[in-house]
Amino acid sequence: MKKVKVYVTLKEGVLDPQGKAVEGAMHRLGYPEASGVRIGKFIEFAMTDDACSDQNIRELCEKLFANTVIEEFRYEVEEVTSP
Amino acid sequence: MKKVKVYVTLKEGVLDPQGKAVEGAMHRLGYPEASGVRIGKFIEFAMTDDACSDQNIRELCEKLFANTVIEEFRYEVEEVTSP
Repeated sequence: MKKVKVYVTLKEGVLDPQGKAVEGAMHRLGYPEASGVRIGKFIEFAMTDDACSDQNIRELCEKLFANTVIEEFRYEVEEVTSP
Repeated sequence: MKKVKVYVTLKEGVLDPQGKAVEGAMHRLGYPEASGVRIGKFIEFAMTDDACSDQNIRELCEKLFANTVIEEFRYEVEEVTSP
């Protein structure tokens, strides 16, 4: 069994209104030093070893998790050690 | 200047309907091997060195980024090397 962690973020240059809103909130909370806030998604799932190929994970990312026009993704695969 | 990356995820045991929906979509896409899908948030921002204490980041996470009743968070701080 493998654990897959996918991180989806907006591409550089794509406007992030949600990030801008959070940045405003950080400034109001007393942190005017914060800048360049970007919000992304984090998806975690388990997958059987044989299905967990790079090709399969890329397909899932491109078809399901990320809108590749405006978003980019990266992923990590971890071995799950069952006791 | 530091770059902070915050990962917010639902606590174990908290129902994740969005994850369940994505899991269904993965099965329909031809990946019935996927299980335990959990969706989280990923927040990235820049912070000046002096403001970037553990205490400050924890405060931001607890007050702004995460709902600590149902969510947990972890964060990484990276040095930004400006050219």
